[in-house]
Order: sequence, then structure tokens, then C-alpha cells
Amino acid sequence: MSNHPFHWFIEHTHTHQAHMHGVDRFIYNTETSYQKASIVESKMWGRCLLIDGKIQSSAYDEHIYHEALIHPAMLMADNPQKILIAGGGEGAVLREIIKHPSVKNALMVDIDQEIVEFCKKYLPSWNAGAFDDSRCDTIFADAREFIKNTNQKFDIIFMDLPEPLEDSPCYLLYTVEYYNLLLKKLNPRGLIALQADNLNPRLASGHTRIFNTIKQVFKHVASYGCYIPSFNTRWGFIVASDEICLEKFSSQDIEERLQARALTNLLFYDGITHQHLFSQTKDIRDKIKQETRIIRDNEPFLAY
Amino acid sequence: MSNHPFHWFIEHTHTHQAHMHGVDRFIYNTETSYQKASIVESKMWGRCLLIDGKIQSSAYDEHIYHEALIHPAMLMADNPQKILIAGGGEGAVLREIIKHPSVKNALMVDIDQEIVEFCKKYLPSWNAGAFDDSRCDTIFADAREFIKNTNQKFDIIFMDLPEPLEDSPCYLLYTVEYYNLLLKKLNPRGLIALQADNLNPRLASGHTRIFNTIKQVFKHVASYGCYIPSFNTRWGFIVASDEICLEKFSSQDIEERLQARALTNLLFYDGITHQHLFSQTKDIRDKIKQETRIIRDNEPFLAY
Amino acid sequence: MSNHPFHWFIEHTHTHQAHMHGVDRFIYNTETSYQKASIVESKMWGRCLLIDGKIQSSAYDEHIYHEALIHPAMLMADNPQKILIAGGGEGAVLREIIKHPSVKNALMVDIDQEIVEFCKKYLPSWNAGAFDDSRCDTIFADAREFIKNTNQKFDIIFMDLPEPLEDSPCYLLYTVEYYNLLLKKLNPRGLIALQADNLNPRLASGHTRIFNTIKQVFKHVASYGCYIPSFNTRWGFIVASDEICLEKFSSQDIEERLQARALTNLLFYDGITHQHLFSQTKDIRDKIKQETRIIRDNEPFLAY
Amino acid sequence: MSNHPFHWFIEHTHTHQAHMHGVDRFIYNTETSYQKASIVESKMWGRCLLIDGKIQSSAYDEHIYHEALIHPAMLMADNPQKILIAGGGEGAVLREIIKHPSVKNALMVDIDQEIVEFCKKYLPSWNAGAFDDSRCDTIFADAREFIKNTNQKFDIIFMDLPEPLEDSPCYLLYTVEYYNLLLKKLNPRGLIALQADNLNPRLASGHTRIFNTIKQVFKHVASYGCYIPSFNTRWGFIVASDEICLEKFSSQDIEERLQARALTNLLFYDGITHQHLFSQTKDIRDKIKQETRIIRDNEPFLAY
Repeated sequence: MSNHPFHWFIEHTHTHQAHMHGVDRFIYNTETSYQKASIVESKMWGRCLLIDGKIQSSAYDEHIYHEALIHPAMLMADNPQKILIAGGGEGAVLREIIKHPSVKNALMVDIDQEIVEFCKKYLPSWNAGAFDDSRCDTIFADAREFIKNTNQKFDIIFMDLPEPLEDSPCYLLYTVEYYNLLLKKLNPRGLIALQADNLNPRLASGHTRIFNTIKQVFKHVASYGCYIPSFNTRWGFIVASDEICLEKFSSQDIEERLQARALTNLLFYDGITHQHLFSQTKDIRDKIKQETRIIRDNEPFLAY
Repeated sequence: MSNHPFHWFIEHTHTHQAHMHGVDRFIYNTETSYQKASIVESKMWGRCLLIDGKIQSSAYDEHIYHEALIHPAMLMADNPQKILIAGGGEGAVLREIIKHPSVKNALMVDIDQEIVEFCKKYLPSWNAGAFDDSRCDTIFADAREFIKNTNQKFDIIFMDLPEPLEDSPCYLLYTVEYYNLLLKKLNPRGLIALQADNLNPRLASGHTRIFNTIKQVFKHVASYGCYIPSFNTRWGFIVASDEICLEKFSSQDIEERLQARALTNLLFYDGITHQHLFSQTKDIRDKIKQETRIIRDNEPFLAY
Repeated sequence: MSNHPFHWFIEHTHTHQAHMHGVDRFIYNTETSYQKASIVESKMWGRCLLIDGKIQSSAYDEHIYHEALIHPAMLMADNPQKILIAGGGEGAVLREIIKHPSVKNALMVDIDQEIVEFCKKYLPSWNAGAFDDSRCDTIFADAREFIKNTNQKFDIIFMDLPEPLEDSPCYLLYTVEYYNLLLKKLNPRGLIALQADNLNPRLASGHTRIFNTIKQVFKHVASYGCYIPSFNTRWGFIVASDEICLEKFSSQDIEERLQARALTNLLFYDGITHQHLFSQTKDIRDKIKQETRIIRDNEPFLAY
Repeated sequence: MSNHPFHWFIEHTHTHQAHMHGVDRFIYNTETSYQKASIVESKMWGRCLLIDGKIQSSAYDEHIYHEALIHPAMLMADNPQKILIAGGGEGAVLREIIKHPSVKNALMVDIDQEIVEFCKKYLPSWNAGAFDDSRCDTIFADAREFIKNTNQKFDIIFMDLPEPLEDSPCYLLYTVEYYNLLLKKLNPRGLIALQADNLNPRLASGHTRIFNTIKQVFKHVASYGCYIPSFNTRWGFIVASDEICLEKFSSQDIEERLQARALTNLLFYDGITHQHLFSQTKDIRDKIKQETRIIRDNEPFLAY
């Protein structure tokens, strides 16, 4: 057994399935008012953040997740200046957002100050100084409450949230009532974008329900996704807008906008990757078409 | 623990990583002259074929793997009539190939008759009667020897092989010498297509080496891939041709050819899925560009 | 990974602890009206019977469990002729009981005929022909109902039962009401003996509760136990009698009785082993002394 | 999965068997010149010391291991004053030794100063102040070298060593040459005692070889053992003497000596526990009888 690790992190993605990650060192564990968090040094993925037993991001591939979440909506927006993020604790969404020269303000509203401080300390390369950038602000509050009460409007609202588990406050950030609220706080030609659960077709009912729920509110909704190595699965995202036609962006269009914004040195995302992300496979498209459920405050979506 | 399975199949994809699959029933185990095979009824994926401890295909998603392996090359070919398959034991490649009306003969050369009989018995829906189709033939022989000695030429040669493990005979079907042999046995405007290892970027060095090796022999080589749920990873494929420009096929072109061949009812593959498959992500494209190694008979590629 | 098995049976003995058993072949699974049973060929222990995900006995060490359960009580009895067994499905208790020449009748009352037939077929060496021995009888019935209604009396009553799980009928065979019933059905100088849960001190509360419950009914009660390799733990047994002083048997006494009965060729049990079994370690003795709970029909004991 | 841990320590005790321990927190990892050590807070056993992936001792049950290793030899000795320990890093052997009022000096010779400092810091209750006791001394050196060169003689020499793994220096502390050396350094009526590998009969060949090797050197050799919960197995020990007849000690003898030394408040060990430990089960006795191998410097014993 000498060549196998003896410390493991075992992530159950379903009652009947788990991933075993060999672990080099366990760095830190904490339990905040809202969630359990650990930092581990995994043998395959380097440093990882786990929330409630699920990998949120790893040193090896957090750029895949964060580039996929942020850049499509940023590039589809004509001139994104004012950005809101619900969640976003590690600071990597801020890091990616302020790569776009048009941005004047990126405001992150995260409920859990402890996690944000924890990530600053143990995952400094995730924010890469973004928390100290003059364009970035952070408020520690319930995102839905904040949005309901604010007078501000935004060009893009991102949701970088953990999966909604029972007893976790974020399940109210996945409902039709919440998405209706977002619509009212967007500037003209505004967009929303979010991580939107597993795209493994066997486990995609969260994704299809989120899609169908947003479809009740926004005219244009696009499902996209990519394989995240440390998640051992293809992960889903959704972007939506009431005015911008999301389907019209060709690989060439994206490439031109990236060049115009001097963003041609990303590690994962470019025009061809955009085409990969947004050419959703037929099996998932079929599941989305067949979905009729709508997530509501009183009929919430709870992940495994 | 009442809701968790107690039988598990644990697949190590690396010394430091494994996937645990809950198992309902173990159906059959065998050990042939070439490999160890098991049939299990997994809770997530239904019936699965395991070769040497690795999932080859599952009832739930074998159509994803087989549609992705077969249809791109078949559609890029002008008029595929004569097809050779190296490997292909389960018979699902035959099943997909004969969906194309132009096919006159599909000849499968598999070294392991026991596995083929085993799959016929335990996985009948995989071949779905293809073994009995008058257009299909099966020869039990070493594929490389057969190809070296045959006088026939083919429109497409598929490789549906397990990963090359130490002591497994198939490692000689991944070398530059072998690909040179294939080139000589293709009809004009012929193609080859193959499963080409893991596309997890952390484990993609098999894929990039196979790509670079084929690039030494064929003028046009395309890397493509998709997430296979039961593999818990994105899997790579390669298609190559000396004359056909593989990049020129748009989503619309594929859709038109599918309609012309009355193939619009596939479960996974269509024009948009084709675009997904062939829009390789930037990280993998970069790795392919940087690859310089060539797989040779005396410097083989051996998977984990 | 080539030298590690890829099929595993994982036995959770507690929420926070599990044993992984490499498996060679899975032989058969069934689900009866009462329980789920599997036969597996494990790499360490050979053929194993699993009930509801827990190892009941293995080819390698079932003799340890069965010799420890049967022979102490049989030897402490003066002249055991009439034996009752509640449970005992595999038939190995019958096999051990009829090694004692005084035995005239051994009657096994098991609720689950399907399991008994299943074991006869897949574990023939467990009963070793005992089911066909003229001294042995089998009745398929609820043991408590049978005992309540029978007019017979017995020299020894054995309980060879699975652990009482929720929804399993056998939890009513661990209560003070049941033990009171047993007392009435014993001949003078009769005994009872039973498997009595885990002796891992961290998990011994089942054992101490069973002991304390029996202590309410019988004057002499002895806790004993031994390590069962395939269980990965020390397992507990209890023997009790209202008249026979169980503590008085020295290693020498046991050895003499074994010789008198021509039983000196057992694999595990002899006079010194008897002394090992009955010299309970201080930590367990202390836990038994401190136990005050009594298992009742309406306050049952349910194992993990 | 909410009630299962997601951090696990997996201990392979054999290629085909492993124990999974749920882990609450990982405290510290280090790699010394000689070994890899981790401190983890396990859910079942509290704080644990792991050396090279194997549990050495846990807060919950280290007293079982250390009482079993130390007290039998100490009590069989007439008047133990001068004690040597080879190994013994955690300091718990010192803690137990100095409970005996006759002890004048306990000298621990451990090769790995880093581990000793590491244990002092993270496992302070293991030594419980013994390192600061005026009767205790510690030397950091190779034990065999030290013993070869010392002019001192001892009443008892203990070996508290990890299992001999390949590349670990301690395999030379398990050979007939080493035991011959020990014999020369004992005072009249001296003893040696040691942990002596797994007593799981399937894995007991280390124990039987150590026994047979010591038997070549010492006239009286006794195998004993007990179940250690956190090891998930019964563990072996050996005590040997050239002059003291080890078999003559009854439960009553031990109890009297414990009282004479005011040692009646141990948690695990007393007269009856002694009888349990030394009444070796028949299966192990048979294996010891059949053992003919002798461990030599050039034919060493290496554990899994």
C-alpha cells in the first residue's frame, strides 16, 4: 500500500456514488454560523475548499469554474460597469470581474464573513488582491434582503452560491420570487448569471428546474456547462437576460470582444471554449424541454 | 447506514483518486486469456461491463460513448461503405455503424472471443441484433496482424479498444508504426477514429501523446470529447484523415447530413452536440500544442 | 492499483467506522420477507454470508464463532439431551451440537425458511449434513411464539440471531419478557446461551444491556467473548443458568469433560481457550457493573 | 450523507482489507528522517498517532496497549529496578513503568527525536509528565547500537517498536542476533517484553516467527494478546525470560502482586485480565507450534 495515500476526503454526490480524493495535508477546519468549511491539500488538485463536505474550488481548476461563471455574461453585456455578486466568498469572482476594463464597481454580498476571512487567509491566490481593489466592495448580509431593499441597479448580477442544502439559507436564492426581484434591479440590457448545479444527466434535475424557473421571468435563458476536473462531473451554469439575445454570439464575436478588452490570455475561456460551453448536448437540451417544475419559496429546490 | 449500499465497485483512475459506485448485484466474473471482465448491476448506471477494474460501458450511458465514437467520422465520410473496427467487443459500434444506410460491410476484428460471447449473453441490448445483421462480420484475431496481412481497404477504420495497460496486447494499437499501417489500408478520402483516453487535464497526457503520434501520419487530426457520466470524467476521441478537412463541418452541415441519412433520432448526437464535441477547450488545445512525444512500438503509451 | 481488488464489501459498524473487504466474486443476492442476504467470495475470508449488510459468518472463521457459541454451554450442562435453537439458519449450530454424544434432539426454530434453503445451497459445509441427521429437526416459525406455545422443556436453549435492527422481527428475542419465558421452558439445571453483540468497549452498550436484562431473570450469568477475524472485532456471548454455577469451571474441568465426550479435536475451543473466553477483561467487567438498563418489549434494544 | 463524516483515514492492514476511520480534524503531519507521522482527531477514538499510515495509539485505548505491554513483565519480575526501552516514542511506556514503586531508572532509547518531541507536544497525556520524572532518561540513538555498546545491565528490556516495514531501521530489532544481544544485557532473572504483531490468525505469521525466533534464545517464552479497538484486531505481545517460569502466574498471584505494589486502579489490567491475555486461543497455539522459521539479520521479517 506504500504508494497509496491513507488520508482521504470522500465526497458523496449521491447515496450511491462517491469520489475519493487522496489528501496530503489537512490545513484547517472551521464551523461558522452557516456552514462547515475545511481547507485540505489534496494530492490531485492542490489546496481545496470544502463546504459541508463538498468541494467548492481547488487550486488546480478554480480558474475553469470562475472563468466559465464570469466571462460569458461579462462579454455578452455591452458595457458592464456595475456588478453585483450574491455569495462569492473566495473572492475569485471579483478577481475575474475586474479584468474587464469597463467595470466601475463590483459589489459582493455574502452572508458569511467568517468564510470570507477564512478564504482570504488560506486561499490568498483565489482573490489575488481583488478585495483590496478600489473598484470592489464587500457587504456581509443576506443577499436577498439586500437586493430587496437596495435602490441601486446593476448591469449584471452573479450568483456564486453553494448548492441549496436543507438548513442552508441560500435555498431562497433559487426561487422564482427571487429571480423576479433580480429582474427589477437590472439596468436596461442587464443580465444575470449563476452556477446551476450538476450536468450529469442522471443528476441534472436541479439544473433543469433552475432553468425552467428562470425561464418564467427572463425572455432569453441559456444553459451552458463544462467539465470541472475536481468535481468529477460536468457542471452547469445559466445566463439570462430580458433583452439581449444570448444565442447570437458566435465564437468569432466572443474572440473580437476579448481582444477589444485585452482579455486574450485567459487559461480556459476563449471563443472556441465559448462555443463548447454553449453548444449544450442533445440529452440535456431534451431534459430541459421536458421540465415543467418551477422552484418557489414554498416549493424549494434542495440538492443532495 | 440503511440507505447506503454495502457492495461497492471502486475504480482507481489514479493512485490518488478513485470513484466508488454502489452496486446492486454482481452478475458474472470471468478471466479470459487477455483480460478480467465483470458484469455488475450498478445502482446509478444499471448494468456495467468492467475490464481489468475499469468501466467500459454502462446501460445508462453507453449510447453517449458509442454515438460520440462512431457518428462524427461516419458523417464526415462522403459515402462510408466498408468499415473496419479494431476491438469493439460489446457490438455497440456495429449497432451504430449500420444505422448509416450507405454501409455495405462492417468487419470487427477482436482478439478476445470469450469477451464477445460474454457481452452477447449479458449485454444483449449493446449489440441489439447487430451481430446477426448480414452486413456485419466478426473475426477473432490480433487486429494489427490482420490489418498488416489483409488485401482489403476500408473507408473508415475505428479503434474501440481498452486503455493500454501493461501486459495487455493492445498497446501496439496506439503507436506511430500502427497508424502508418492504417494509412495504407484506407480508401481515398478515408478516415480513422478512436477513443483516445481521459480529457481530465490533469490526466490528459495519454490523449496529447496519441494526438501528436497520429499527427505524424495524417494531415488532418481533430481532438474531441465529451463527459461520460459513468466514467466520472470527460473522455477524449480523435478522428483523422489525410484528405478530408475535418474542421470545415459546421453544426448545420452535420444536421443536413443526419437528415439525409434519416438519423435525426439519436439520443446524444446532433449538429449542436457535434459543435460541443469539436470545440475543444483552450486548456486541452494548449496541452496538445505543447506535446512533442511520439508513441512508438518501443516507446509505448501505458495508461494508469 | 493492479494488486488491489476493485470489488469491495464495505461494512459500517458505526456511522464513523467501516471495514472494507476485498471481494473476489459475488455469488448470489436475495431478499426474503425478513431480510436481505448475499453470498460473496471474499479474498481474505473465502465465502461469506451477509445479512442486511453485516457479515454473519465466513468460511475462514465460522468455526470460531460457532464453537464459542455452542461448546461452553454444552460442556457446563451435565448431560444435555434436548436442545432448542432460536434462529441458527446456516445449520452450523446443529453441526456443533450433535458432536456431543448425549444429544437426543436438537430442534431449530427459524423464522426464515428462504435463508435456511439459501444457506444449504451456497454454504453446504456450514451444516455439514446436520440437517439430514436424525437427531435434528427444523421448524419455520417465530421462535418466541413457538416457545410460548410449546409443552416441551429443554436442557439448553441457544439464540443464534442476527443483531436486532429496526423492522427486524428478532428484537423481541432480546427482552426481559422473552428471557422470563425461556426460564419456564428449561429443564432443571438448564442453561441458555446466545451471541450478545459487540465487545469493542466503545460499542459494548448492547452487550451490557443484554447482560443486565438476563441478570434480572437468571441467578448465574457469564459474559464471555472472543475476537472474530472477519468481524474485525471482539464479539460477545452470554451463558446463563438458574442453578449451575458457571464460574466454577476451570480449564482443567473443561478439558476433562471434552475428553469424556471425545471432543478434543476442535479447532478453536479447548480448556485454555475456555479460560481465555471467560476471563473477561476489566474494562468490560466495569461497564457491565455500571449498567442499569433493562431491555423490555416496549423499550427494546436496536443495534446500529 | 449528512450524518457520515467526509474525512476518512483508511488503514490497509492487507492488500485485501482496510479499515475506514471517520476523522473530525487533522491536527498535524510531519516527515522525519525515519518515518511519516500524523496526528488526527478521529471520531471514534479521539486523538490518534499514525506512523506510516498505521495507527500506533489512540486516546481512547492507548491504555489497553500500554498496560498490556508493560505490566505483565513488570509483575513477573521480582523487583524491577532498572528498565530499558527500545523505542517508546510517545512516553506512555515510561508512564506505566514508573507506576511500579521498585523502579529506580527507566531509560528510553529512541532513534527519532523528532517523533518524541512531536508526541510531547500533541499527545501530552500519553507521557503524563513521565519525561520530567527524575527516574526517567531518554537517549536518541539506534537501540541496537546502544545495547551492543553499553556496559549496563537491565532487569527488563521492553521493545515498543513500530512494525518493521521496508526501509525502516527497526527490522534489525526483531532478529535472533538482536535477541542474543539482549540476553547478555539482562540481570539475573531478567525479562524482555515486546509488541509482537497481529494476532488475527489470517495475518499471524509475523507473530509466530517472532515467537519462534525468541524461543531460540530464551528458555521461557509466552505469547499473549488482546483486542485493541482502534486497531480493529487482536494484537500480540511476547514476554520471555531465561530463568523465570512465566506460566506459573495465576490470576491470584498477579492480583497479590498488584496489591503489594498499590496498582489496583489500572483501567484494563488486573488478575483476571492477565488470565485472559495469557490463555492463548488454540488456533494461535497450533500456529506457534507449527512455526519453524527464524528471523535473522539477513532473513528479516517485514510486515505488510
